[in-house]
Amino acid sequence: MLRACRGEAVDRPPVWLMRQAGRYLPEYRRVREGATFWEMCRDVDRAVEVSLQPLHLLGTEAVIFFSDIFTPIPNLGIEVDFAPGPRVATPIRSLAQVEALRVPDCRESVPFVFEILRALRRELAQDQVPLLGFAGAPFTLAAYLVEGSGSKNFGTLKQMMYRAPEVLRALQELLTALTVDYLNAQIEAGAQAVQLFDTWAGILSPAEYREWVLPVHREIASKVNRKEAPFILYVNNGAHVVDEMLDVNADVLSLDWRIDIGALARRAGTRVSLQGNLDPCALAAPREKIFEMVHQIARDAAPARGHILNLGHGCLPDTPVEGVRAFLEAAKSLGSATQRNVR
Amino acid sequence: MLRACRGEAVDRPPVWLMRQAGRYLPEYRRVREGATFWEMCRDVDRAVEVSLQPLHLLGTEAVIFFSDIFTPIPNLGIEVDFAPGPRVATPIRSLAQVEALRVPDCRESVPFVFEILRALRRELAQDQVPLLGFAGAPFTLAAYLVEGSGSKNFGTLKQMMYRAPEVLRALQELLTALTVDYLNAQIEAGAQAVQLFDTWAGILSPAEYREWVLPVHREIASKVNRKEAPFILYVNNGAHVVDEMLDVNADVLSLDWRIDIGALARRAGTRVSLQGNLDPCALAAPREKIFEMVHQIARDAAPARGHILNLGHGCLPDTPVEGVRAFLEAAKSLGSATQRNVR
Repeated sequence: MLRACRGEAVDRPPVWLMRQAGRYLPEYRRVREGATFWEMCRDVDRAVEVSLQPLHLLGTEAVIFFSDIFTPIPNLGIEVDFAPGPRVATPIRSLAQVEALRVPDCRESVPFVFEILRALRRELAQDQVPLLGFAGAPFTLAAYLVEGSGSKNFGTLKQMMYRAPEVLRALQELLTALTVDYLNAQIEAGAQAVQLFDTWAGILSPAEYREWVLPVHREIASKVNRKEAPFILYVNNGAHVVDEMLDVNADVLSLDWRIDIGALARRAGTRVSLQGNLDPCALAAPREKIFEMVHQIARDAAPARGHILNLGHGCLPDTPVEGVRAFLEAAKSLGSATQRNVR
Repeated sequence: MLRACRGEAVDRPPVWLMRQAGRYLPEYRRVREGATFWEMCRDVDRAVEVSLQPLHLLGTEAVIFFSDIFTPIPNLGIEVDFAPGPRVATPIRSLAQVEALRVPDCRESVPFVFEILRALRRELAQDQVPLLGFAGAPFTLAAYLVEGSGSKNFGTLKQMMYRAPEVLRALQELLTALTVDYLNAQIEAGAQAVQLFDTWAGILSPAEYREWVLPVHREIASKVNRKEAPFILYVNNGAHVVDEMLDVNADVLSLDWRIDIGALARRAGTRVSLQGNLDPCALAAPREKIFEMVHQIARDAAPARGHILNLGHGCLPDTPVEGVRAFLEAAKSLGSATQRNVR
């Protein structure tokens, strides 16, 4: 996995799934029982247990620690609830509100995150499977903080872009500093690669992405300790900004299923490895169809300097476990020969 | 407008707005009062009145008849309600259900549609403003009919694609025949251009779009009476399939705001005119910002053989009327000189 991130030779594409620790697994639901999402994120033992389930039960080739992109947010002085998406009690609409936010040292404010990572790293010592950290991207966090929750059109956020750009800029600056520090602290605690999730940057036009998001992604890519841990960038619904994403200087671009991975592999050349990009809904397809699709993605992605098989979005709660098993088996059936044939 | 559709010389880009007859207008809300959406669609006088409001109150340069993409559906023998999106009482899941659908002559099953169009055409005789017809695309109609309503992931629809493709194929075939007939009947009744709205085709990967949707779009484009009425194709959230859309052989591609209209104008050459593509949320921006964005879009689109200014998606209910006015004024302030400078 780590070699593929860096574009070094591998026998076949490694494989894991975004949101692989989740409700589609009966074993996850059992551990989760009676606990709120927040409680799960803060309970080191349970978070470690569910993080390891996809490895032990299904054989994924990376482990990502169980948490949420909102984990470090309440410590800024913002009240957040889950219902199930984040709900912000007092949405941020003014510069004064941004200036009133505290940015505590995340090592002290969310110590459980680093305990979870250290425990996982110890558990994984024998497995030779890498541990992944992650964070929400500043634009996505800002989108929730300004809008107050998820939204169909993010009209309030966009109004801020048009009418009070200085507020959004200040908020993103603060969140960028937080994110860099948070990811680097995860790397110190044992994360061997880190992924930035930008769920909402895809609502922007390419010009707006270049103005509002690209500099933030670039800044994070430049400040994260990439010698220790490759940096993976995911933009949901981002097919229209994928050429801009090439300029972020990430180690890996994680692709939505709507992106033609073959065309991008040819354009990306040796600049970046690619991750993805099966439609999560396809895990409900018959086993042979899943195999066919996985092999097609691997063939398409072969010109990339490195390829990590994954979904194009997080695993859905109603995903059949059989589909996840078929996906992993299909990936593992890819031989280096298959790879060589198509290169 | 019609000259721009066909790529003939115009002084400046004409302008109208998708969903320009709608809740953002207080005058619309007044006419609508006490009536359900269905009642409005079937009430010739009120539908004519609200269709004309954007022309008379705001000065749009095209009039689209007030209706919904689901208007011809209940006559197939399917029970539909609005809440506010379409809700299908018994979703379609089997070939037997598809085969049980009736396809009545739309001239008899939804006669009010054509009465509305004939009345509007009479009203517009003096105004020199074209009358537009429209229909929902078969994939989008099928998506609602299979899923039963709108959906975040359209997992049931996609399962049908993977597991029972013959059902979806049969359903789309039936809806394609219906759509061609419906659009041609609108043209007979006075529509001078017709737009096909594919709200959900953007959930597909490019390969799936080529398999499931492109042939349908091509068939409709080839069977609609385009000598009488140019054919406009809109795919929501379709930035990743826009090169495929060039192969539909439409007269106009109507573009989501996430599409780089300048890059597409250069690739499209003389094949197709372009419509769009301001973000509907941008109508909440300050007046000068709206002018700036409209002028930027016009400059970017100038290499296209023709350009019609519009939004990248339908006008939102909370849009300030002032924003719509600024949008129209900005469009009308574009001189042929501006155009010539940038060509």
